[in-house]
Amino acid sequence: MRFASDNSGPVHPRVMEALQAANDGWALPYGNDEWTTRAVEKVRTAFEAPEAAVYFTATGSAANALALATIAQPYQTIFCTPEAHIEEDECNAPEFYTGGAKLTLVESRDARMVPEALARVLESKSGENVHGAQMGPLSLTQVTERGTVYGLDHLNELTTLAKRHGIPVHLDGARFANALVSLGCSAADMSWRAGVDIVSFGGTKNGLMGAEAVVIFDPKLAWEFELRRKRGGHLFSKSRYLSAQMDAYLTDDLWLDMAKMANTAAQKVVSGLERIDGAQLLHPSEANMIYASFSSAAHRRLRDAGAQYYPSTGATEGPDDAHASCRIVADWSCPDAHIETFLAHVASD
Amino acid sequence: MRFASDNSGPVHPRVMEALQAANDGWALPYGNDEWTTRAVEKVRTAFEAPEAAVYFTATGSAANALALATIAQPYQTIFCTPEAHIEEDECNAPEFYTGGAKLTLVESRDARMVPEALARVLESKSGENVHGAQMGPLSLTQVTERGTVYGLDHLNELTTLAKRHGIPVHLDGARFANALVSLGCSAADMSWRAGVDIVSFGGTKNGLMGAEAVVIFDPKLAWEFELRRKRGGHLFSKSRYLSAQMDAYLTDDLWLDMAKMANTAAQKVVSGLERIDGAQLLHPSEANMIYASFSSAAHRRLRDAGAQYYPSTGATEGPDDAHASCRIVADWSCPDAHIETFLAHVASD
Amino acid sequence: MRFASDNSGPVHPRVMEALQAANDGWALPYGNDEWTTRAVEKVRTAFEAPEAAVYFTATGSAANALALATIAQPYQTIFCTPEAHIEEDECNAPEFYTGGAKLTLVESRDARMVPEALARVLESKSGENVHGAQMGPLSLTQVTERGTVYGLDHLNELTTLAKRHGIPVHLDGARFANALVSLGCSAADMSWRAGVDIVSFGGTKNGLMGAEAVVIFDPKLAWEFELRRKRGGHLFSKSRYLSAQMDAYLTDDLWLDMAKMANTAAQKVVSGLERIDGAQLLHPSEANMIYASFSSAAHRRLRDAGAQYYPSTGATEGPDDAHASCRIVADWSCPDAHIETFLAHVASD
Amino acid sequence: MRFASDNSGPVHPRVMEALQAANDGWALPYGNDEWTTRAVEKVRTAFEAPEAAVYFTATGSAANALALATIAQPYQTIFCTPEAHIEEDECNAPEFYTGGAKLTLVESRDARMVPEALARVLESKSGENVHGAQMGPLSLTQVTERGTVYGLDHLNELTTLAKRHGIPVHLDGARFANALVSLGCSAADMSWRAGVDIVSFGGTKNGLMGAEAVVIFDPKLAWEFELRRKRGGHLFSKSRYLSAQMDAYLTDDLWLDMAKMANTAAQKVVSGLERIDGAQLLHPSEANMIYASFSSAAHRRLRDAGAQYYPSTGATEGPDDAHASCRIVADWSCPDAHIETFLAHVASD
Repeated sequence: MRFASDNSGPVHPRVMEALQAANDGWALPYGNDEWTTRAVEKVRTAFEAPEAAVYFTATGSAANALALATIAQPYQTIFCTPEAHIEEDECNAPEFYTGGAKLTLVESRDARMVPEALARVLESKSGENVHGAQMGPLSLTQVTERGTVYGLDHLNELTTLAKRHGIPVHLDGARFANALVSLGCSAADMSWRAGVDIVSFGGTKNGLMGAEAVVIFDPKLAWEFELRRKRGGHLFSKSRYLSAQMDAYLTDDLWLDMAKMANTAAQKVVSGLERIDGAQLLHPSEANMIYASFSSAAHRRLRDAGAQYYPSTGATEGPDDAHASCRIVADWSCPDAHIETFLAHVASD
Repeated sequence: MRFASDNSGPVHPRVMEALQAANDGWALPYGNDEWTTRAVEKVRTAFEAPEAAVYFTATGSAANALALATIAQPYQTIFCTPEAHIEEDECNAPEFYTGGAKLTLVESRDARMVPEALARVLESKSGENVHGAQMGPLSLTQVTERGTVYGLDHLNELTTLAKRHGIPVHLDGARFANALVSLGCSAADMSWRAGVDIVSFGGTKNGLMGAEAVVIFDPKLAWEFELRRKRGGHLFSKSRYLSAQMDAYLTDDLWLDMAKMANTAAQKVVSGLERIDGAQLLHPSEANMIYASFSSAAHRRLRDAGAQYYPSTGATEGPDDAHASCRIVADWSCPDAHIETFLAHVASD
Repeated sequence: MRFASDNSGPVHPRVMEALQAANDGWALPYGNDEWTTRAVEKVRTAFEAPEAAVYFTATGSAANALALATIAQPYQTIFCTPEAHIEEDECNAPEFYTGGAKLTLVESRDARMVPEALARVLESKSGENVHGAQMGPLSLTQVTERGTVYGLDHLNELTTLAKRHGIPVHLDGARFANALVSLGCSAADMSWRAGVDIVSFGGTKNGLMGAEAVVIFDPKLAWEFELRRKRGGHLFSKSRYLSAQMDAYLTDDLWLDMAKMANTAAQKVVSGLERIDGAQLLHPSEANMIYASFSSAAHRRLRDAGAQYYPSTGATEGPDDAHASCRIVADWSCPDAHIETFLAHVASD
Repeated sequence: MRFASDNSGPVHPRVMEALQAANDGWALPYGNDEWTTRAVEKVRTAFEAPEAAVYFTATGSAANALALATIAQPYQTIFCTPEAHIEEDECNAPEFYTGGAKLTLVESRDARMVPEALARVLESKSGENVHGAQMGPLSLTQVTERGTVYGLDHLNELTTLAKRHGIPVHLDGARFANALVSLGCSAADMSWRAGVDIVSFGGTKNGLMGAEAVVIFDPKLAWEFELRRKRGGHLFSKSRYLSAQMDAYLTDDLWLDMAKMANTAAQKVVSGLERIDGAQLLHPSEANMIYASFSSAAHRRLRDAGAQYYPSTGATEGPDDAHASCRIVADWSCPDAHIETFLAHVASD
């Protein structure tokens, strides 16, 4: 039962084939190869952004930190939610890459930033004098860190506030594809048409071995990004093996198909939980991640069965009828049988 | 004719097989997987260093910058040669990762640091007051950036000076294996037994897809290294695919075999050049990299034949008998036929 | 009417005399002078800390940032209140000097950190894995940014929590003297005896021209502090003129006398406001800073009379009976007549 | 005999008077005071640059580091001489403030940068690819660190090379006034008319207590400089006391008069040494600093007489007729009697 994270499943066979195909012979290093050219073009096509600067990194933290460093100054603050990956899970990578910018936490509900809260914070920062950190980028996460998805209206409302104050917008799209298939809109709708300036476009959590794209809609930032990527140690000499992954990802809708498989798997778990007395969702589950609560007895059964997921601390230690929360994530490779077994263990009270 | 760089050839088939094998199913992320455990153990065995802390990164610049940041303070200076990769080819990654340490360039011959020069510089820095950068690590490169290899005596002489002044020693071993087979010694001889404290142990230039190890002989530095790797965005969620490369690399001497193939190929080029009137070596070629000079006419013939190597600027533009320099590098995959064709083009004056 | 800030008044005449006296002739630079030796000794005596390392800076932001950089690592987070000067008023100086550490905001009441909130946050950070910022120093502000003063029990409760988690404690004592005379305890009681490891000991807001001391109770940190001060550009060649200020400050209790004068002046304002119908204190005023609220009509009268203080935005624009907040600060030089005039303007509704 | 440094003498009485005068009452903090307004205007007038942005700091290292951080990017390198203060005497402050830029050392003669060497280095850096540090500012020092002065032609030749490559020029003018009276030109001639973009305009070494100005000829950089100064901890709350120094400095030519006194004193020493058999100048002494060599016996006599200057290590330990070098610096306050005594001690062989 593999529900710990979408970074724990296998690489999709078509991606492995693409890597094997890319291994045929000799290629110029540092992105001067045909795979990179092709993959960049496919990202541009996917985003309907023929002028966009597109670069690949191997980790999402690198994509986020480099993207933010390119649009933030060290004397600024970046606005994000308290749950954001850049705040919680990158061991100060944004502070490091920006040369010491701050992160300002803006109130969220179900990990979605509250527009009124952002409006208040930006208003209070507007015209900030020399003593305080200056307004820097807004960074949003889609899918959010609690499994919810911003609707396009919500996204637009937030980015409109940012534009009004003249600050750029970053989208942490580690699960971009999962959000996209959830909303049923286009990549352009969910990025530049919604006021986003720079996207961390994830692949690693969605069936790649380790490849993310940074999509920069203003190509004037391209060279600075390249220099920052290099000095961060993130320019791969054998870039073709990053690019080949991204190339396969964007071929024949593989990225969307895998995201659909992941979301569908998660929604089966959701449906199952909804039918179980005493189980409850802690946040709406709108893509491939679930925050739920059920009995400690159920957590113990899952543990004993070797289920992989993230129960909260002490979840297995309460009395039988104590409720304890957990995180459940599905990826493209999740077998139906795992879902059924998982639910059976939860339900058997 | 593939002589541009050892980062341009294909990944060895056994490494591709290992990646495929590692793709079987689900694994815990961030290095908590069996491939990582196994690969770490193999590195320790290769270095006869059972206590060493071992971590994997995907690029050599990351390995170097993280290693140096772990042993240098921001108010120190790092001693290296003017040709060092950390000085010339990392776009200030060492300065970035150390938080602003300086690099002090020490005189070299054939890109090998001159012990008398190091002694003088360290002496002058000894007891430095608060105004100057303080003595930080010594960083040496093996194979050097001009294709020479430090003998063990030479290495020991330099590290002894470092120890005398209480500074740690980093070895940039992007071509560690090539140096090792050149010297015919053990990895321990060329590292901790020679006074080296931390090694960037390269794999990418020697048949891997993108995997390096940082070997830290003092395990007390382990946790700090892990934190610095994470905040640099260099901790891979799907770490097994880095580790599987390193695992295959260190299985059945693949790393040494590939290095021998690369060195042998280069030495064939060297022997050929030595027989060609007017061609000359600019530095002793002791591993898989050659700096040579020959006629502009020859450079033109090579260019027209599509040879991949690095001629100096304007090399193809001189009169027929003008001499112009170039860099030639061989990797494990270099076919003999390429060598012969290359030499034939150089020789046909 | 001078209530804008305690950084706006004149330097005390005895400090000016000390500067004049220090100007007699030639002295070795960079702190190798008799004034520095003497002032360091006086700080040690004042803190009953004969082994403490003591350094002078010209600004409080420098003192704070250097102190924190000496005890924090770039992959850590610093715990402070949302109102802390290091969070609100130093334009990311702590992030800059620490090389990218984070600040974690802990709930406060009247700008005093709530022990239960700190306990919760530290508990949640305890055993943090590699993904999150690691626990770094606790930084407390005394007098707080809202004019309240931590009692010794409160201080001890917070530092005990810090000790339990093995993190060092910094005290931002920009108004150290004002807090001390408010509590009536000794400098040792309010610092190392209360579990504080490093103090920014302010002078500039209390009658000096521009001089603060950093007091480090563990002298092993001394040399690192010196190097960080130098590379921050905060080592004065003519150090004697910083030291002479601090020397005078600590002579014949001048520092305590000035703090008493400031506190007394503020308490007269407080007493006056308490007698005015409709005026109210927003936080307990326990030293020389007052947060109060009174009518917009009163704010207009004060503005027209040229009173210097910080009304909130729009304070003068409401209807006559609207209430609007403000900050009022007194320093040693505040004349009684100013207090009376100020209060008269507030009261005349 | 006070020849150790021009940072060791007293503050000029007129500067002390100005500080006393500025202490009359209350003033708005952070530069919003009349002294700052007046001093800024006087700097603009002195430089014939009515639009220039002008800011004050208390140390020269702060002025240099902030100036460079404002015009350099972290992925660039700064060109300077091996003797430059920013390379030798600031404990990596430039690397720190720029976020990790590098310093590239360009060959010098008598500490003056050699134009041909700069041309070569810039040529080699021109069109640098992503791997190497990019071309950043040129930083020149006037008076140089060996007591020589760039002629205007020399300055122009260097800055013309910089302009040709599109890089900005910083002038470290810690001894700006001494150079100016040496050349007999105007401040504009020696700065913006000579192609300089930003100047560290020193005062501390020329009779002030601790005040430097950064003069930025392109006012578009003003706000970024202010933010960087603040986050460096270099914005003084009681700014009037910096400004009052600079105000007095630029009143009635005090700055030039003090520089003349210092230069004249040094030239008396030079003349004396030239008459002494066996004494010799190591570099032309063109302002107030002398590098000279004379007998160990003379060094011993000076030591025994308590002379303050910087003999080289071991200067007093050689045989009587061994020659040993030293640095001698004069400031405005140097008494003729000291010069005569000093020379008498040198000469008495």
